[in-house]
Amino acid sequence: MGIVLGPNRYGKAEVRLVRVVREDAVRHEITDLNVSIALSGDLAATHLVGDNANVLPTDTMRGIVYSFAREWPVGEIEEFALRLARHLVAAYAPVHTARVRVHAYPWERITAANGPHPHAWSRGAGTRYAGVVCGPDGTQVVSGLEDVTVLKSTGSEFHGFLTDRYTTLRPTDDRILATSVQARWRHAGVAADWGASFARARATLLRVFADTHSLALQQTLYAMGEAVLAEQNGLVEARFALPNKHHFLVDLSPYGQDNPGEVYHAADRPYGLIEGTVLRDDAAPALAELPW
Amino acid sequence: MGIVLGPNRYGKAEVRLVRVVREDAVRHEITDLNVSIALSGDLAATHLVGDNANVLPTDTMRGIVYSFAREWPVGEIEEFALRLARHLVAAYAPVHTARVRVHAYPWERITAANGPHPHAWSRGAGTRYAGVVCGPDGTQVVSGLEDVTVLKSTGSEFHGFLTDRYTTLRPTDDRILATSVQARWRHAGVAADWGASFARARATLLRVFADTHSLALQQTLYAMGEAVLAEQNGLVEARFALPNKHHFLVDLSPYGQDNPGEVYHAADRPYGLIEGTVLRDDAAPALAELPW
Amino acid sequence: MGIVLGPNRYGKAEVRLVRVVREDAVRHEITDLNVSIALSGDLAATHLVGDNANVLPTDTMRGIVYSFAREWPVGEIEEFALRLARHLVAAYAPVHTARVRVHAYPWERITAANGPHPHAWSRGAGTRYAGVVCGPDGTQVVSGLEDVTVLKSTGSEFHGFLTDRYTTLRPTDDRILATSVQARWRHAGVAADWGASFARARATLLRVFADTHSLALQQTLYAMGEAVLAEQNGLVEARFALPNKHHFLVDLSPYGQDNPGEVYHAADRPYGLIEGTVLRDDAAPALAELPW
Amino acid sequence: MGIVLGPNRYGKAEVRLVRVVREDAVRHEITDLNVSIALSGDLAATHLVGDNANVLPTDTMRGIVYSFAREWPVGEIEEFALRLARHLVAAYAPVHTARVRVHAYPWERITAANGPHPHAWSRGAGTRYAGVVCGPDGTQVVSGLEDVTVLKSTGSEFHGFLTDRYTTLRPTDDRILATSVQARWRHAGVAADWGASFARARATLLRVFADTHSLALQQTLYAMGEAVLAEQNGLVEARFALPNKHHFLVDLSPYGQDNPGEVYHAADRPYGLIEGTVLRDDAAPALAELPW
Repeated sequence: MGIVLGPNRYGKAEVRLVRVVREDAVRHEITDLNVSIALSGDLAATHLVGDNANVLPTDTMRGIVYSFAREWPVGEIEEFALRLARHLVAAYAPVHTARVRVHAYPWERITAANGPHPHAWSRGAGTRYAGVVCGPDGTQVVSGLEDVTVLKSTGSEFHGFLTDRYTTLRPTDDRILATSVQARWRHAGVAADWGASFARARATLLRVFADTHSLALQQTLYAMGEAVLAEQNGLVEARFALPNKHHFLVDLSPYGQDNPGEVYHAADRPYGLIEGTVLRDDAAPALAELPW
Repeated sequence: MGIVLGPNRYGKAEVRLVRVVREDAVRHEITDLNVSIALSGDLAATHLVGDNANVLPTDTMRGIVYSFAREWPVGEIEEFALRLARHLVAAYAPVHTARVRVHAYPWERITAANGPHPHAWSRGAGTRYAGVVCGPDGTQVVSGLEDVTVLKSTGSEFHGFLTDRYTTLRPTDDRILATSVQARWRHAGVAADWGASFARARATLLRVFADTHSLALQQTLYAMGEAVLAEQNGLVEARFALPNKHHFLVDLSPYGQDNPGEVYHAADRPYGLIEGTVLRDDAAPALAELPW
Repeated sequence: MGIVLGPNRYGKAEVRLVRVVREDAVRHEITDLNVSIALSGDLAATHLVGDNANVLPTDTMRGIVYSFAREWPVGEIEEFALRLARHLVAAYAPVHTARVRVHAYPWERITAANGPHPHAWSRGAGTRYAGVVCGPDGTQVVSGLEDVTVLKSTGSEFHGFLTDRYTTLRPTDDRILATSVQARWRHAGVAADWGASFARARATLLRVFADTHSLALQQTLYAMGEAVLAEQNGLVEARFALPNKHHFLVDLSPYGQDNPGEVYHAADRPYGLIEGTVLRDDAAPALAELPW
Repeated sequence: MGIVLGPNRYGKAEVRLVRVVREDAVRHEITDLNVSIALSGDLAATHLVGDNANVLPTDTMRGIVYSFAREWPVGEIEEFALRLARHLVAAYAPVHTARVRVHAYPWERITAANGPHPHAWSRGAGTRYAGVVCGPDGTQVVSGLEDVTVLKSTGSEFHGFLTDRYTTLRPTDDRILATSVQARWRHAGVAADWGASFARARATLLRVFADTHSLALQQTLYAMGEAVLAEQNGLVEARFALPNKHHFLVDLSPYGQDNPGEVYHAADRPYGLIEGTVLRDDAAPALAELPW
């Protein structure tokens, strides 16, 4: 009976990269990323005796991110993550598996006198995500969306739930439903029209959230996942974490007022947290190291 | 020589209010606010001996916010802040001065199959602000904008600065200029088309940021303030706090690469912080308690 | 080939509970907790058709947390988590598995004229954690620590690492080593002297961090895990996430100064992230739903 | 009637400095600071036409912070702030006024086998603050404390307050009183035993918070300020911002339980916010640019 090293990985987290593509002297494109890398492999010696011969410094990973961004434009973030992950596994023998996570922040061109400005932007809401694993068991890609807060002011009910001596919630047939969407969807392959796929999935998620008459946030979650998969054959699994951001109808009766669904308190904590997966029944399993 | 009570105030901060206006069964409007109140007046007794006879509980202020939101729709946030501040001063003799601060979060209708959804939204970027003071020296209103992050990938220089033995910065004629705009503008009066004024000021700030060929962030600040005042006679003073969010060109020479303005590191700290005021030379002074 | 529901769970997150135990009129004890619950089980109907018959409302979970805290004092957080998880599985047939996470914030008695004050505290640094899963595959308990930031100003080297064309880091035999410890350790059983075990593990982690002459943060991680397991037979596995909070020696040569390990810049991002597991080679595997 | 430049300033914010003093090969002292500088003066040209001849780059300020930290150990943060502010005004003719703000994070030596470790620390709670202004109207120093969260589980009442039609709060003679102390105190002069003064003020604030039987948080605020000034002749004014962090007794009657001051919900928002000043009646006024 001994004490041993178990699973481990390490890397550089949150490399902030802004890439400018200069189409001409005044017309630019920008990409604004937060890139995190984690490697695993033949790393026992550094843990056990501090022998770093197999350790690619995290500083080197940082440099690779920037150098690769110069070599070609970043392109779609899934491509960039794939390019990085494949290189890390191919170039360094001790590295068996590379995980790359990329968050992309959206920027919209500022409206100037002559229309969209060629090199000035304001930052929008919602973050696009790509995660890639590349290792001995293969390569997989997940895309996603987070920090997209959505709200419906009606079209949401919650009743018929399990009750017991601890029940205080009253059933309702009209409540505010609000959540901050964290969604991920896994691709069947490692090549796709990543940009078009993301745009379509994003639009679908919002549209289904809006259009689903909701009897439970779980129902909305499933509908969102089902629609994303149904519309895109290249997607095999969707995962969600949806905080139920409670809005409580304020009791105005002390002031002699009714409150027919008009005045709400937006609460911070506690909140509900609904997590779920929707997948194709013939989907190959997700790799354990895939960075959802 | 004694120890005495000096200036003081108290109130309820961050009352989170979502107000739904039901135009019909399915078409709604929403307003999402964070309201803070601070009162000052005849409050020595609570400080000195714990006599609370003059203390309106902060819980009551919370109730007033919600009750007033029910009585009428919130309307423009400047109006709502005025309505609250005036009530607090008028209704409670010990209250001499009321300050009300309102932050409003923007929501955009989700695009559904039939166009903009009647009661579903996603939250956008940037926060609108209104601050009001109402007291013995009068009433003033300030409007504003914050959490609007903007970036230009060219059209920004910085050179000709003061140098000495501590100088390490090199002059540049092409850098990224980025900031998170916190802007405030003070109104001459207490009545205006608040919504139109805000929309115009917001558009002006972004447009001027984009269009100004910048030799210093201070120059951009002044140009933004000047334009906002020049376009709206009802505005008398603008104040800005603009963090200079540095983007550093990454040195790629160790990898045998040049970097002609393409690959940047977005730094967190330290950052520059540029604060400044632009005003009309005949503007009445701002009241000391105006909540900028 | 169809689309189906996969793994899912839901619950109330971040129930903030302060429990006061009144030993007498003036001498109190307090416990300050953040409790999160997640349940899984027979929940297909709510996802697929919005039938909530099996759904225990998250509001009820909130009530259970508070009610249980009244029924008995909270006690050690592992016990409280076990009590909640076991009830949730036992009382509700559709619930197959309950996960409970508890974060506890430390408070130290304020020093008053007569020594430690009987009912006044100031909040300290570092958060204690307990996680429990209770389900068909058994019950497991993990304890932990987070938000404990530690720093060594010497006794840390990093050299002998893998180099290639992307290497820019220079080897060092004296650097600052700093991290914010997130540590978890799994108990073999479901009964222990939780308080003593936590105190000992915490002291061990800090002492080993301090006393280990470090050739790599991975080496320090392993030494911390090994020591915690070696000292307590009841512990079978330890997991760590250790951000390498870089402190860079500032180049003072432009000012004609050397910098022999005296002046450092504490960087925010990017940072290294070292994750690893240390375990007994005869440890039963951790349950999949154990909330590390 | 024209548009003109009003008050303005600029500088480098949040320079993160860790200074190591090597007393010998193994015994060190560390200082962990966050330094912000703001300068004002003859800066019209940069705002109006982008002429930066009078602009000391914020990058230079960053260098000065680090270089000064090397030249001598930092010492007490008030001294370091004074040293920086005086240099900035003396060395650069266009600079008329310098404001320096320093936040210091506390570190405690880790307890190792042989007692307090000579070069390893864990970070504690609470931040020490110093702010200095140096300009044509003189030099002033303020010290302070923030992020110190304190709580009393009894010894706090709130009743006898102003009531009206919006009142819903019930009077109480036993409640939890909790706040996160932000305190500042102004020194009469520019020389003092800064470290001893801070330690004493900190201890006084906590002790008075604990020992004051509170009828209102305002009363506690005043008592804290009065005690700090009464104990130290060199202090002339104290300012506080005390959020009233509400803890609500949970209604357990739905579960058939009473709740005699035992189970509380710690709420996030809204919160009360109590701000107040205590000063000597013969105190010279604070300079307008003093960074409280």
